[in-house]
Order: sequence, then C-alpha cells, then structure tokens
Amino acid sequence: MTTPFPLTPRIATRYISAPTMVRLVQTVGVAQSIRDIAQRVRADFCRWSDFDKTARVANHSDVGVIELMPIADTVRYSFKYVNGHPKNTRDGLPTVMAFGVLADVRTGAPLLLSELTLTTALRTAAMSALAAQALARPDSRVMALIGNGAQAEFQALAFQHLLGITELRLFDTDPAATDKLVANLHDSGLVLTRCTSTAEAVRGADIVTTVTADKTNATILTPEMIEPGMHINAVGGDCPGKTELHADVLRMGRVFVEYAPQTRIEGDIQQLPPDFPVTELWEVLTQRAPGRQSAQDVTVFDSVGFALEDYSALCFVYETAQRLGLGETLDLIPTLDDPKDLFGTLRARRAALRRAA
Amino acid sequence: MTTPFPLTPRIATRYISAPTMVRLVQTVGVAQSIRDIAQRVRADFCRWSDFDKTARVANHSDVGVIELMPIADTVRYSFKYVNGHPKNTRDGLPTVMAFGVLADVRTGAPLLLSELTLTTALRTAAMSALAAQALARPDSRVMALIGNGAQAEFQALAFQHLLGITELRLFDTDPAATDKLVANLHDSGLVLTRCTSTAEAVRGADIVTTVTADKTNATILTPEMIEPGMHINAVGGDCPGKTELHADVLRMGRVFVEYAPQTRIEGDIQQLPPDFPVTELWEVLTQRAPGRQSAQDVTVFDSVGFALEDYSALCFVYETAQRLGLGETLDLIPTLDDPKDLFGTLRARRAALRRAA
Repeated sequence: MTTPFPLTPRIATRYISAPTMVRLVQTVGVAQSIRDIAQRVRADFCRWSDFDKTARVANHSDVGVIELMPIADTVRYSFKYVNGHPKNTRDGLPTVMAFGVLADVRTGAPLLLSELTLTTALRTAAMSALAAQALARPDSRVMALIGNGAQAEFQALAFQHLLGITELRLFDTDPAATDKLVANLHDSGLVLTRCTSTAEAVRGADIVTTVTADKTNATILTPEMIEPGMHINAVGGDCPGKTELHADVLRMGRVFVEYAPQTRIEGDIQQLPPDFPVTELWEVLTQRAPGRQSAQDVTVFDSVGFALEDYSALCFVYETAQRLGLGETLDLIPTLDDPKDLFGTLRARRAALRRAA
Repeated sequence: MTTPFPLTPRIATRYISAPTMVRLVQTVGVAQSIRDIAQRVRADFCRWSDFDKTARVANHSDVGVIELMPIADTVRYSFKYVNGHPKNTRDGLPTVMAFGVLADVRTGAPLLLSELTLTTALRTAAMSALAAQALARPDSRVMALIGNGAQAEFQALAFQHLLGITELRLFDTDPAATDKLVANLHDSGLVLTRCTSTAEAVRGADIVTTVTADKTNATILTPEMIEPGMHINAVGGDCPGKTELHADVLRMGRVFVEYAPQTRIEGDIQQLPPDFPVTELWEVLTQRAPGRQSAQDVTVFDSVGFALEDYSALCFVYETAQRLGLGETLDLIPTLDDPKDLFGTLRARRAALRRAA
C-alpha cells in the first residue's frame, strides 16, 4: 500500500476499520467514549458560528435513503456517509451503516477515513444525553426506552453515566430486540423493566426516549401518555415521512432541535408549520436561550443527527487513534514527484518497471 | 483486516488505492481507459432521467474548496469527494485530490472506495472528448491547449484518440508546465508546438481547450481570439469566482453544459444572467437538441464536471478491478451476528478476548 516514489509529501490517510473501532472503544471504555464525545460536541456546539453548516444531502429510493453530511470550520472539514434501510435486518444487514472522513481545510487532504456505524451510535447517545443535561429535570432517574434495536444500549449507558438514570422501562414491538437489550445490559447496574406497551413503559417515567426504525409517519407517543415534567428524547424520527410523535405532543411543551433548517425537513416537526417555534440547542448551551424553566415543563428534543456531531466524533476518533497507535494508513491520494505532473505517475511507474525488468 | 465473527453477510468494500489505480490504467492503457469511460458516460447521459441529480455541495475557505458530488439511479449510488486548492503545488501537493464511493441503492452498503485523483483526470478528458465529438467540426485536427498542468496530457490523449487531433498548440504562464507536457507526450505521435501566448496558441486552431487552475475571474480567452468554426472546451472555470472566458466569448455561439443548475453556479456562465440560453449535453447525445449546425458555428462546452461522470467512472473502476482482480477489501462496516445487536460487537469481542486470555 505504498507509492513507489515518495519524493514529495505523502498524504497518508489514517484508516480506522470497524474491527479497529471496536478495539478503540474497548480500550477507552464505552461510557468514557460517550463522555469524551459529549464533551467535544458541547465544546463544538458552543462555537456554533465557527462552522459552515448545511442540511444534509439525501438520495431517497423506495427502500431507504443514503445521505452525505458535510461541515467545516476554518481548520477541519468532515463528512459522513450514512444510509437508512429499515428492511436491511431481513438480510442480516444493519439498518444504519456509516463511515466518514476528516480533512485538512488548508490543503483538502483527507486525514482520516473511519467507520462510523458504531461511532454514530456513540455520538447519537452522547448528543441525547447532552441535550437532556440541559432539558430534563435534574432529579430524573427513570427512563422509558421505546425501540430496543441497534441504538438502544448506547442510549441507556449514556443516560446512566451522564444523567444518573437508574431504571429503564423497555418496550419494542419485537420482543427479541428487548431480549437482546436485557442480555447486553444485565450487568450494567441498571434496573431493567420489560413492559408490554409504550403506554405502560412511559407511565411515570422522567425521560422518554424513542428510538424506533420504521420509515413511516408513526405515532409512538400520543398526548395522553405525556405527564408534566417529562423530557422527551425523540431520536428515531429523522427523515421525511419518518416521525414518532403525534403532532399534539410537540405542542405540549417547548421543542429543541440541533439545526432548525435540517430538522424542519427531517424531524418530528416536519408535521408542523414552518414557523412553529423551536430553540436550537447551541443557544441553550451558550445560555442565549433558556432550557427547562420549571419542574412541570414538558421538553422535547427533536433529534435528527447533525453533521457537527460527526465532526466532533471524528476528531475524537482521530486523536484517540493517534494516541493509542491504532489504525492503518491508506494511499488514497497519489504521491507525485511534481504536483503538476499527474500523468507522470503513469510514466514513472512504467519506466521503473522497465528498469526493473 | 477481517472481522472476528463473520456469521452474517460481510460487507467487504473493494479498495482501489492510488498506486493500484496506476496499475489498472497501465494494464488497460491510458487511451483505452479514456475510451471505456467515455462510452460509459455517453450511455449514462443517454438515460439522464434515470438519475436523482443535485448540484454539488461545496465548503469554501480562503484558500480553496472541498466538494461532495452525490448521484444515484435505482441500482447504484455514488459520490465523489474533491478539493480545489490552487496554491497546493507550493507545498508539493496536487491542486485537485479526489476519492469516491460506489454503493448499493438496495441496502446502502458501500461496494467500492476508490482513489479518484487520476480517475478524475481520465473522466474529465473523456467528457471533453465526448462533447467535442458532438460539437466540434468533424475535420478538426489542431487543438490549442491553454494550461499545461495536471489535466493537460489527459485532454491531449483524449482528443488524439477520440477526435483525431494531430497537433497541439501549447501555452502556459509557467514554462516548466509546458516542458513537463512536452516530455510526457514526446512519443505520443502528436505534433507539439510551443507558443508564447494564448493568442498565438489559439490562432488557426480548430478546438481550443482551456484548463487553467487559478481561482480568479480570469479572461484567458477574449472575443478577438475566436474564429468562425471553433469549438471551445472550457474546463478550468468550475467554481464561483473561477472563470476563464470573457463573457462576450460566451455570446459568440451556442453554449453547452452538463447540468444547468450546477453550471449556472460554477461555470463560465456564472457571469451571465440566469436565463442565458444553454443546451444540456444529454439533449444533444439523445438527439433532442441539435449540436453543431454549420462549419461556421462557434460552440462552447462550459464544463464544470458533474457527478454522473464520476458515477460512470466509478462503475468502470469497479468492473475493471473485478475483472483484473485488482484491489484489496476494507471492513468499513461491522459484521454483526444479529443486525439489531450493534452493541454486541463490543461484548462479543470482549468475551472472545476473555476466552483467548
């Protein structure tokens, strides 16, 4: 994987495969990884105006969506590739698969290519916990977790370690998903309570997290389930035609979003008029806008996942991999003797082969 | 680079590094690679309505731009990452660096990750030649080549082999760039004539190709240089603030573009009103619109590079690499025992390590 004539700067892109990311997270620890990413996301959201932001670019098909999520400040650029194919599990494939790149804004050179399937689960959980720190009641201990699929354990651990949640009330239309979650978290220290319906799981919860996968306009949460003081962490409604909350749930309290132009297209608020009032989370984190104002408030985090969270996560992966010496290098970019002589890569190699023969 | 428990489908992404692409092009041959790509681009442009198209997404900085170029039909999705940093050559780095991905629309799985720096030069030349086949006079033999940098040899060979060009009239503000081009093409069979100005190079040419790199509103070609019957292949003006033609040159004949919504932002026609009439090349290739109508016409191909060309090129790379057995595989996506059990990758590995200890 090396170029033959590295006379000029070689652009070696660090590569973190899915198995290497497993090793990285195991070395750092799952809870600590979520904590580290949450800290970076918070710091990056607090310098919101530094970033050149755009709603993600989506290509929809009958069975799913593929999206690109670019963002940049003046130093680093990142993008994520991510799909959403709810029926993939029938073929043994993940619903959501992702990878991403961190690049140098000064030169355009790619610094890092990383798996982001596992990392997206970590950063989404980190973002949810970060929002809940600002929006949920500080004495929250019980969380309903509706949807027990691929993202669920990460949400559970983020809320345990960053919020102090001690009990989970679980529901999924697929009991096997809940079985899996209970098995994965049996030694987590969390009290795990299986419920037979969303309404049962939600009753009495301080926080309600919805992380379901169907690409439909679902109404997982309806107004009569919502109690005063609840914080709703709505993670699964994240593309056009894919919602989780009854529209009236959104009208029961204040709604907080990552990046309004994207959330109005993709979030649960796609059901509401384009002037429905929302607060961007960076405004709360920088104390430009209030978060929760009383113990009786209903708060809703209409999460869709924003490119800046992946930027923060890629910076975490890049710096952690460097520190731990993890990963390989890729020659994605040719190393040229003369940067204006791209054609020379073909001739030089040919000449070298001739010399070698 | 293998996952520990490949019990379910492993998504092995084929990886073509920059050195592997050199080997691929040397095996197929430069001219034949351009020919193969041109044939695919033509076929894909002729089924224009099959594609979900969008203008590329750009992040601009003071020193350059980084862009993502996605596109999809119902079977395959592709995107390219590409930068443009004119001052990179000072640091020994290429001005333009690129890589891209081909993915399966049905599942979202990435099939191919490939270098696209060398490939972009091939596909840009293929596109230019394809346009000229429809737009230049069939008896064209002499081409002025203004800008002798990284793209120039590929343009030269494409026009030699696909158009029958026999003589090049060369000019670059940097004489060393022309030296390099002359050295690279001395045994190509082309007659190479060095000129001391753009005006001298253009005089009497059948085709004028401009492929300059400065990110400025330049006027490489001015109206008094243009002769009846010329075809102008304007390759270098390809982002906001980067143009090569005097606006009046665009008014001297019909202007042809790849994808009008993108070219109106990025092409030389950014200087003209948004309703300036242009013809999309696919309309000419499918005979919905005329190309050249007389030997006296001036025709302008205002090329900026469109995602569909990279789609065609990535399909060429993917199928050629498979046929030749070139490339490696990457585990960008985790292989899961249970697709809903992403968290299990962390536990299973931990358990396996425990067993192994």
